[in-house]
Amino acid sequence: MPTSTLSHPAFTRIPPWVQSKLTPIAISKITAVYDFVENECIPLEPIMKSQISSPSSRWTTQPLMHELREKAKAAGLFNLFLPKHFKESPGLTNLEYACCAEIMGRVYWAQQTMNCHAPETGNIELLAKYCTPAQKKKWLQPLLDGTASSAYSMTEPDVASSDATQIGCRITREGDEYVINGRKLYGNCIWNSENKFYILMGLSDPENPNKWNRHSTVIVPTSTPGITQVRNLTIMGYDHAPEGHGEYVYKDVRVPVENIILGEGRAFEIAQGRLGPGRIHHCMRLIGQCERAYELALIRCIDTRKTPRGKSIGSFDSNIERIAQMRLEIDQARLVVLNAADTMDKHGNKAGRYAIAQSKILIPNMATRVIDECMQLYGGQGLTQHTPLPEMWTYARFVRIADGPDSAHRHQVGRDELKTAEKFLERNKEYRRKYLKAAKEMGVEVETFHGVTPDV
Amino acid sequence: MPTSTLSHPAFTRIPPWVQSKLTPIAISKITAVYDFVENECIPLEPIMKSQISSPSSRWTTQPLMHELREKAKAAGLFNLFLPKHFKESPGLTNLEYACCAEIMGRVYWAQQTMNCHAPETGNIELLAKYCTPAQKKKWLQPLLDGTASSAYSMTEPDVASSDATQIGCRITREGDEYVINGRKLYGNCIWNSENKFYILMGLSDPENPNKWNRHSTVIVPTSTPGITQVRNLTIMGYDHAPEGHGEYVYKDVRVPVENIILGEGRAFEIAQGRLGPGRIHHCMRLIGQCERAYELALIRCIDTRKTPRGKSIGSFDSNIERIAQMRLEIDQARLVVLNAADTMDKHGNKAGRYAIAQSKILIPNMATRVIDECMQLYGGQGLTQHTPLPEMWTYARFVRIADGPDSAHRHQVGRDELKTAEKFLERNKEYRRKYLKAAKEMGVEVETFHGVTPDV
Amino acid sequence: MPTSTLSHPAFTRIPPWVQSKLTPIAISKITAVYDFVENECIPLEPIMKSQISSPSSRWTTQPLMHELREKAKAAGLFNLFLPKHFKESPGLTNLEYACCAEIMGRVYWAQQTMNCHAPETGNIELLAKYCTPAQKKKWLQPLLDGTASSAYSMTEPDVASSDATQIGCRITREGDEYVINGRKLYGNCIWNSENKFYILMGLSDPENPNKWNRHSTVIVPTSTPGITQVRNLTIMGYDHAPEGHGEYVYKDVRVPVENIILGEGRAFEIAQGRLGPGRIHHCMRLIGQCERAYELALIRCIDTRKTPRGKSIGSFDSNIERIAQMRLEIDQARLVVLNAADTMDKHGNKAGRYAIAQSKILIPNMATRVIDECMQLYGGQGLTQHTPLPEMWTYARFVRIADGPDSAHRHQVGRDELKTAEKFLERNKEYRRKYLKAAKEMGVEVETFHGVTPDV
Amino acid sequence: MPTSTLSHPAFTRIPPWVQSKLTPIAISKITAVYDFVENECIPLEPIMKSQISSPSSRWTTQPLMHELREKAKAAGLFNLFLPKHFKESPGLTNLEYACCAEIMGRVYWAQQTMNCHAPETGNIELLAKYCTPAQKKKWLQPLLDGTASSAYSMTEPDVASSDATQIGCRITREGDEYVINGRKLYGNCIWNSENKFYILMGLSDPENPNKWNRHSTVIVPTSTPGITQVRNLTIMGYDHAPEGHGEYVYKDVRVPVENIILGEGRAFEIAQGRLGPGRIHHCMRLIGQCERAYELALIRCIDTRKTPRGKSIGSFDSNIERIAQMRLEIDQARLVVLNAADTMDKHGNKAGRYAIAQSKILIPNMATRVIDECMQLYGGQGLTQHTPLPEMWTYARFVRIADGPDSAHRHQVGRDELKTAEKFLERNKEYRRKYLKAAKEMGVEVETFHGVTPDV
Repeated sequence: MPTSTLSHPAFTRIPPWVQSKLTPIAISKITAVYDFVENECIPLEPIMKSQISSPSSRWTTQPLMHELREKAKAAGLFNLFLPKHFKESPGLTNLEYACCAEIMGRVYWAQQTMNCHAPETGNIELLAKYCTPAQKKKWLQPLLDGTASSAYSMTEPDVASSDATQIGCRITREGDEYVINGRKLYGNCIWNSENKFYILMGLSDPENPNKWNRHSTVIVPTSTPGITQVRNLTIMGYDHAPEGHGEYVYKDVRVPVENIILGEGRAFEIAQGRLGPGRIHHCMRLIGQCERAYELALIRCIDTRKTPRGKSIGSFDSNIERIAQMRLEIDQARLVVLNAADTMDKHGNKAGRYAIAQSKILIPNMATRVIDECMQLYGGQGLTQHTPLPEMWTYARFVRIADGPDSAHRHQVGRDELKTAEKFLERNKEYRRKYLKAAKEMGVEVETFHGVTPDV
Repeated sequence: MPTSTLSHPAFTRIPPWVQSKLTPIAISKITAVYDFVENECIPLEPIMKSQISSPSSRWTTQPLMHELREKAKAAGLFNLFLPKHFKESPGLTNLEYACCAEIMGRVYWAQQTMNCHAPETGNIELLAKYCTPAQKKKWLQPLLDGTASSAYSMTEPDVASSDATQIGCRITREGDEYVINGRKLYGNCIWNSENKFYILMGLSDPENPNKWNRHSTVIVPTSTPGITQVRNLTIMGYDHAPEGHGEYVYKDVRVPVENIILGEGRAFEIAQGRLGPGRIHHCMRLIGQCERAYELALIRCIDTRKTPRGKSIGSFDSNIERIAQMRLEIDQARLVVLNAADTMDKHGNKAGRYAIAQSKILIPNMATRVIDECMQLYGGQGLTQHTPLPEMWTYARFVRIADGPDSAHRHQVGRDELKTAEKFLERNKEYRRKYLKAAKEMGVEVETFHGVTPDV
Repeated sequence: MPTSTLSHPAFTRIPPWVQSKLTPIAISKITAVYDFVENECIPLEPIMKSQISSPSSRWTTQPLMHELREKAKAAGLFNLFLPKHFKESPGLTNLEYACCAEIMGRVYWAQQTMNCHAPETGNIELLAKYCTPAQKKKWLQPLLDGTASSAYSMTEPDVASSDATQIGCRITREGDEYVINGRKLYGNCIWNSENKFYILMGLSDPENPNKWNRHSTVIVPTSTPGITQVRNLTIMGYDHAPEGHGEYVYKDVRVPVENIILGEGRAFEIAQGRLGPGRIHHCMRLIGQCERAYELALIRCIDTRKTPRGKSIGSFDSNIERIAQMRLEIDQARLVVLNAADTMDKHGNKAGRYAIAQSKILIPNMATRVIDECMQLYGGQGLTQHTPLPEMWTYARFVRIADGPDSAHRHQVGRDELKTAEKFLERNKEYRRKYLKAAKEMGVEVETFHGVTPDV
Repeated sequence: MPTSTLSHPAFTRIPPWVQSKLTPIAISKITAVYDFVENECIPLEPIMKSQISSPSSRWTTQPLMHELREKAKAAGLFNLFLPKHFKESPGLTNLEYACCAEIMGRVYWAQQTMNCHAPETGNIELLAKYCTPAQKKKWLQPLLDGTASSAYSMTEPDVASSDATQIGCRITREGDEYVINGRKLYGNCIWNSENKFYILMGLSDPENPNKWNRHSTVIVPTSTPGITQVRNLTIMGYDHAPEGHGEYVYKDVRVPVENIILGEGRAFEIAQGRLGPGRIHHCMRLIGQCERAYELALIRCIDTRKTPRGKSIGSFDSNIERIAQMRLEIDQARLVVLNAADTMDKHGNKAGRYAIAQSKILIPNMATRVIDECMQLYGGQGLTQHTPLPEMWTYARFVRIADGPDSAHRHQVGRDELKTAEKFLERNKEYRRKYLKAAKEMGVEVETFHGVTPDV
């Protein structure tokens, strides 16, 4: 592997063990993604923002986005996330793609220029895995080509959606159609005309004794009558136009039965496979965001205009320590996510479940902390549109609750861990047996052992 | 004091030592504020929001606000913050007004209905303290009457404004006028026509050897030619219409010399007195916000629609502990601010400086933590406009940096504290002398004493 | 109140609202306690330690302690904690005594010189409240006179003692005697001959359907045959000689039936009243410890021998901020405990339950954090016997778990709080009703209100 | 690589990317270390403790230690840490040895049974790297053979030792001898007769204009007249017998000039190379300790004797979340240290400096937090000798300050990072240039860009 390539700034933060695993094709893609983000995306951030800010075209995918997508496609940077089994795949491993995702995270919309954005990536994987060839041709191919966009619709306002068995939006078969009635939260806005269909999870068989078989997943074209977008849901006040997060009422919405994915009652089977890689992508992008926030903080530290008490912000020992702590925590977080990606590469998404949960819980927490610190270093300006920091923080905060709050994930990990307690108890009893034996042999008086008194 | 009055819910969270100091007039005002907020403000929150949300009238003070201000004024709830020396003052102590401020904090715009809102309160105190009778008649009285509104203009983009000696906006005398040139951040928007003037701090005598005498404060009517509002500054994405936070360019803005306050070079004298009580008000309002957020969290905890794993959110031991921790921290914070108010009552703003800084540092940190936890308990909805929580968090985050970041305030407190170190060192030497004497008398071998070896 | 008295350093940290409530007698006692601790105790710390360190007399109350107790008694500083209804009481309120307790906390054994130490204080209150005159004469009076010492025995190794209904040590009546069998943890060591009796809680009526009536409390003289002290329990390695914390086996230990307190099955009634004031004392002492640790940190900050990178430790901005943060948190904590004491004075121990729990949870956490920071400022020496910091930290850590872990207390507070949720839900429904009415009147479209969609 | 080997419990926590790099010899050593620790060490913990606790032999290396060292040596488990260039080295990489070190950390003295304990490991590397063949034969070989033990002596009470240029213990040449005078802290006790020599750093050339050339390192046999051990320094009350941490006075201590290492004035050259790998070993052992603490916590969670409110400790959702959080943080920490070890393997100790500092700062903090939580889950017993937790916590706390406090290390990292700020500033200017160019081309109005107003 030529050292010259890896001396490219794209690789500065990648740990040695990961660098040594990158294939030439990965090295070239990572480099290209980096150059694209640095040269084509970051400098144009304010222009993208100003295009979106026009009230008349707020919910339209902007000309600049279309332009950049064309460029990225031409440069071979489309669909980099695609697993090897896709013919369109560039063949990157999860670990390799994770390196790309971090770089894309440096501007929140860069992912979209390369057709690697949520929820598209998850939807593409889902459709590829579970659809019939006919369905794929109709729904999947346009997504891969970047000529259409889709959304995922699961969360509901009146149940605890982190427990998906409670989802209540009704899907009822009537003849050759499914009829849908309910209220859904989130999912890209119907107001954006590029959004062509929803992948919707609903309750099709409420009486089924097995609660995991009660739900189905169907494709609902956005043009279907009966869908009303009540509002766009803001996230900490941000509308996230032109994609947004809709709140929808489905009233007698009818889709043909061929729009069902995999078959009735199989929604959980489908949901299962969806989330793993997407969570890793989210987390790596957050790390990329943190790097940008960190770079802005460093710049502020040496800003010659900003010298409280006559010295630069970076001359304060307290800020020197803050900078260090951020650096340490971002790098620590990266190791967690890269390890999760590598674990998925080696042992599959299922075996990687714990490592994915670890990322999902730890990284957004780290990211909100770090970006908050960066805002604080910026003083009052740090909270305003003068910097991209508030949007970054909000995105990190959003990831901390998207796909369920930390506590739900921690609960899951904790319950899995407690299942291992019995094994350690047995081992501890074995220690104690050996101890009692040795104490007897050596004539030593027996003590309380790990909280177990000699009486027991 | 009739127990029946204090059994009113307005007093539930007020600690006994404060309750016992409340005068009958304070009790009646606190009760009235509470009833006004509960009955007239909170239920109308969404209506206020919908009035503001119309693009055509976004930067206009809304009809509902005018209506409520009339009601509050009629009910004797106007200008409650005014210190006793004002003839319009209801005569509340800082401690008593603090109890009102907490309640006003339950809805962020309730303060305005009672003419107790920032920056008006600070401006009113400033004008009352430092203006000539003629100035007072012209600028102060309309604020007290609630017929005009004002703004404060200090922060600048290109210096470290937390060190106000660096403020660079130029004020130059030319004949009978001051000419102002510079760029300012924050201060209510000029777009709102009720905003009549800025109290602006600028650099009038850059060569003065005493850096505390270089700045002046002048009144600048918003109608003066030469002021351009470049944009509204958003705070974490919120525009805070219809008041907002402007970014301004002053280009050859001319005001008559009679608009100067107190005289040239006296800006620091003026700024000094301004901040104390305002910081306490901010902090008490944050506590009121936290109480609302907390109540919403409690409601979510028993929401029968939200039952992950089949039990209510409030049945999870982890959430039970979270609720407790919030309760404990909010109540702890209240004690800090009430003590600061009481210290100001007893010993004046200057003596209260430490206690005010303590509030300024601790309370916004507590509030962001607590409200963040409440959002998390709400799941995805907690970040959306379905609850007032995101706005509350943003306000708390804003207070954490307004008037300077935590670190600047901590730095000030720390440096004051280090000045006391010598005293403790002396005392410790005295301990050691006594120890050495006693050791000698008792024939005991001398040990290292608090890190000082016997060699020294 | 003469200003001169309150300018005494004993009052430096006492907030104005407390100062204004102190009676002359309290002022004189607080002053005297301060002078005693500063002049008689702190300088002799290493001598006390060296007396205890002799292996031959490790478990003997030391000559210096006896001497100081005599001095304190002569100076009228004995039993200051005693509530007014005792004839020996100096008549201090909880609030006033709290000020004394803080000062006593400056050296961990100073409380004992003034007969105000745990567990004696709790035992004295218990015996005074629940014993017969004959019992009082025999057991209580020597404690008040300081001629005997006692211990409390409740915790057990093989149950969850934070849930006292599980206590299993058996108390069985046989004729005129109770026979005791079981294993107990904690309680001053039997090895110290001044320890005259245990107040023991055990299970006397296991079949009683009411689990709160199954336990009894009896007085067990340390001289009773059948008690074996298995070991001294160390706390983080400290043996806390000469009092220590014993682990005991009771084997057919017989006491006369007249040693029962209040009657069979009444242990919970007794335990109830015991803990409130003691917890406040503990917490105030911790605050006194923190002040000492803080003073040592300040001294280190200006130590001219310690100048990494050529500047004193206190010249580092990071340490300046650390000092400030400690100062803020200690003072915040004091307000919490003083408020709890005042609440008990006004409304009794029962009404003060929440405020006591608040202290119990927040203060030891603050104290371990603050003292840990002080150790860190001291570098390697901070962990050694060169400073009293490690013992202080250990004591704070101990208080954090004594009388049950934080989590158990938080759980209790949280469950009490959740009982109030219904009230807020009702109020929120009322808000919504008003909103719906107003929206209708004003012709405004109805929005989701605090997470409740318009559908509901 | 046979799966059967890696299914051995020794590999459970080792991440896939590390597993795939382990050579067969490493796999066999890791397995053997694990079995040795599990079967020979952990069960005998209380026996080791009871042997050390006898006052008569407290400062003697215990018979059980000698026995286990013989066993370990015979099993080929001696000196596993030795780098490949030693003929005694088993040839493990830093990464491979790190896996061994974690396992050794499960009992704090297990490292010593395998001659892999601090400070021996650092001393061996130092002597091997910088000594003459004659010195090696005399001083190094016995350490490798395990027939002697040594100590390192650097820290002093009256300077800021974290800045080693301040070290003041004088080394003066007189004829063929160096004469040493001063006071030193830490270093294994002279009371233990197996401790044969100190490697001492002192000030030999105070007038040298280059402060990095003023110090020398000499070997001082413990038998040299003039050394007095003033006391053993306890760490949080623990004496850490039979090795301990001495405080020494050197009074005219004379050693032959051939005892100098490398030559006069070269102490910093020597110190430089010493610390890297040792810090990694410390950190991995802490992780092993955390795993044990965690296992004990899990066992407590399912303890059927401990059921507050009638359910096991592990049934509380709050504890389930606590368990999860610990699991996540321990695993995160391991990735940090393993990455540091791997970086050293690839690029050498110097290039690994940042990664080593990252471990040094993050891991002890994590470990004290995690072990503290485990103690808390154990209730009161968790602080006593009934569990090994207090000793574990104390060791982690010690590592947090050994080799300098966190803040000193963070300071170093922060200053290194700030040196990179200029580069990011340049890049940001480049972004802005591109933005201004694009804005001009597209006719878009220019906005403030990352805090830089259009004026600039």
